[in-house]
Amino acid sequence: MNGVPESNPGHLAALLREGLPAEAVLSDPDVTASYANDMASFCEAGTPAVVVLPRTVEEVQHVMRTATALRVPVVPQGARTGLSGAANASDGCIVLSLTKMDRILEISPVDRIAVVEPGVVNAVLSRAVNEHGLYYPPDPSSWEQCTIGGNIGTASGGLCCVKYGVTAEYVLGLDVVLADGRLLSTGRRTAKGVAGYDLTRLFVGSEGSLGIVVRAVLALRPEPPRQLALAAEFGSAADACAAVCKIMEGGHVPSLLELMDRTTITAVNDMAQMGLPDTTEALLLAAFDTLDPAADLAAVAELCTAAGAAAVVPADTHAESELLLQARRLSLTALEAVKGTTMIDDVCVPRSRLADMLDGTARIAEKYGLTIGVCAHAGDGNTHPTVCFDAQDPDESRRARESFDEIMALGLELGGTITGEHGVGVLKKEWLAREIGPVGVELQRGVKQTFDPLGLLNPGKLF
Amino acid sequence: MNGVPESNPGHLAALLREGLPAEAVLSDPDVTASYANDMASFCEAGTPAVVVLPRTVEEVQHVMRTATALRVPVVPQGARTGLSGAANASDGCIVLSLTKMDRILEISPVDRIAVVEPGVVNAVLSRAVNEHGLYYPPDPSSWEQCTIGGNIGTASGGLCCVKYGVTAEYVLGLDVVLADGRLLSTGRRTAKGVAGYDLTRLFVGSEGSLGIVVRAVLALRPEPPRQLALAAEFGSAADACAAVCKIMEGGHVPSLLELMDRTTITAVNDMAQMGLPDTTEALLLAAFDTLDPAADLAAVAELCTAAGAAAVVPADTHAESELLLQARRLSLTALEAVKGTTMIDDVCVPRSRLADMLDGTARIAEKYGLTIGVCAHAGDGNTHPTVCFDAQDPDESRRARESFDEIMALGLELGGTITGEHGVGVLKKEWLAREIGPVGVELQRGVKQTFDPLGLLNPGKLF
Repeated sequence: MNGVPESNPGHLAALLREGLPAEAVLSDPDVTASYANDMASFCEAGTPAVVVLPRTVEEVQHVMRTATALRVPVVPQGARTGLSGAANASDGCIVLSLTKMDRILEISPVDRIAVVEPGVVNAVLSRAVNEHGLYYPPDPSSWEQCTIGGNIGTASGGLCCVKYGVTAEYVLGLDVVLADGRLLSTGRRTAKGVAGYDLTRLFVGSEGSLGIVVRAVLALRPEPPRQLALAAEFGSAADACAAVCKIMEGGHVPSLLELMDRTTITAVNDMAQMGLPDTTEALLLAAFDTLDPAADLAAVAELCTAAGAAAVVPADTHAESELLLQARRLSLTALEAVKGTTMIDDVCVPRSRLADMLDGTARIAEKYGLTIGVCAHAGDGNTHPTVCFDAQDPDESRRARESFDEIMALGLELGGTITGEHGVGVLKKEWLAREIGPVGVELQRGVKQTFDPLGLLNPGKLF
Repeated sequence: MNGVPESNPGHLAALLREGLPAEAVLSDPDVTASYANDMASFCEAGTPAVVVLPRTVEEVQHVMRTATALRVPVVPQGARTGLSGAANASDGCIVLSLTKMDRILEISPVDRIAVVEPGVVNAVLSRAVNEHGLYYPPDPSSWEQCTIGGNIGTASGGLCCVKYGVTAEYVLGLDVVLADGRLLSTGRRTAKGVAGYDLTRLFVGSEGSLGIVVRAVLALRPEPPRQLALAAEFGSAADACAAVCKIMEGGHVPSLLELMDRTTITAVNDMAQMGLPDTTEALLLAAFDTLDPAADLAAVAELCTAAGAAAVVPADTHAESELLLQARRLSLTALEAVKGTTMIDDVCVPRSRLADMLDGTARIAEKYGLTIGVCAHAGDGNTHPTVCFDAQDPDESRRARESFDEIMALGLELGGTITGEHGVGVLKKEWLAREIGPVGVELQRGVKQTFDPLGLLNPGKLF
């Protein structure tokens, strides 16, 4: 439907340069090709016609007006650390990279907000607000690279969500350039506000398919005390999951509650010689950022022991805690090293079904003869079964994709969702319809049509 | 546009009775007239053709199918405690009261969720989850009457929002009967989930204009310790507002931070002889539900004193705290007694602008020669300037409406919103466009068109 002006990419670049500096429009095919992908495996990606790197809202408006005039699709990108292919280029598209719009415009300790451009890196914002005694919680594993715009596009999560929630809960208001180049302001900079439909939230997780976020008002919290962690070793994943349920049922509010299975532990040890206890079947990491974390950890240690933990090791210092978290943060990279390639599932189930999810995943790994490591934001029921495979082996690749899909089917069966925090992108688009049903798809398409009637924004993603 | 079958309400009632028990379809004009209004002043209300009180999802579907077939508008209602006229009937409409769908379907301490029908009263749910050691925070002043469905429709707030946020943050998933009678399930029952556009959040605050919520999955928290409060007396509203800024800037997280101005204090004393210090210009109430609330109160007391408080009185017991909160909860009723009628503004500004908001409101009261009492969720910057007037006096009524509007204009000027928690309804519909702008209105209308192409759901509300 969308005309792809393959015949004349030079004309497109020339028109874009009418509103952008020359160096902000890249058209060398060798360069533009390097913008084709995010970090997801098994996702098709096309060849961009041109890559633009605007620095102002007006420049983004010019890009969208040009795209609309020529009917050229636009694929917005942040740091391309996404895991679902949502930022993958389509053939002949304009890749709209927001990475140069990276200014923190305001930090207000009284109003507890930050106003930022989309290209601000998550960790840069986190450190900047820390200096004001404030805290921006969402912390995806890629936080040192990923951008706030990308976090908003994918509605990303992280390790601290079990206490502090996901990106969506921190987005108060947005400035968005629409497909036709007009500017929309949504939401607010106040603590509360209910004027009209919540369009702000509609953009969060929309993977750039409804408009281009060019400015965000983010909610901040006071910086909590530094967290202190413990590690508990279990002889079975089921026991570890039972401990998770007991901890949450007991009214505890950990700032982190993570699970690593034996495959993951071994992979981390192999890569980083961290000396994790790889004789155990599951390692649970819990942390508290309360005024008396040792007391909270003691209560949780007791619950872990009652649930069958073989050993519980509380960190005495923040340095020890950080080492444990470092192991967790390395998990995906370590699993990638096992066979060279991974497909990372992101199934979130009610935490009461976490044990069933882990058990089922182990059965799927056995059925397909594959290594599938699981690390999980256990307190949220958000698992990342990670299929390790050799992409050069066609049969193993096929089995990897089949097992990946079967894991999603299991998640839906258990009352869960196909994606807790990574988004749908290209990787899971066939599964979105299974989760939300035909009525849901129809209405979501209606929303898309309202915002992007020509279908130019990130076509082929979501549905 | 919508055919109003005034000619044959009997036919409508008969068709409705084909799918509902006889007693669930009320058509006696004396009875149906009593369903015309919510609690807002100055809002037009029409005469319903019929009132239906379904008990099942299927019955709601029958109502909507009938309405669609006959092109009859439908106005959904909860307890009608709303303050914006959002539940007011339109002429010839079906009033769809959800009050009989009042079952709590599930409470899960492990998953920290409740699944409820829309007619469950807020306080009933709160008490039910308390029995499981859980907490459902949103607590509008009408919590003993208002329903969860109404809370969702109006995105309502309450006293605890400063720490725990508003209704929207507790709605994980919804079952919604669409205008044409089809059933849509949105969202999830998991802690996290980002599959597709966030339609759940779109329904929160949509005032029944997009669909009929028939089931909600709500997030719960562990029950916190009981809160302990203090009262601080100030010689000026500006000093009280400065204290609010210092408290929030200082990283404190009160579970309540409320302000009552002199007019409000006097009104409460007049009504309930509570012995509040009505020689002061502003009373600040702060509370903490932490493990050591006395320590937090002491720190806040110090900040209040530094900001110029004439006296700071910490409650020693929960009973004393409750008495203070009781005074705050009585404020609107007490202000109503001043002149017989009130119009309650709901302007929320960045808390750094709270003093300007109160100062400006006092000037508006003087300009119009009116009594305007202000109570405020001060920690959120959410003010309720309450215009007291005699509805029998046409000139005073005119001035009341003008001052009410001028207060909203002031709020927008200060970077705020026309509604922090009461919604738009009929009362503020002309102001919504001023807040969200023409592009926002166009997109919101597009969303409405997607969900309700015939315009049957609560027509005339929002925009």
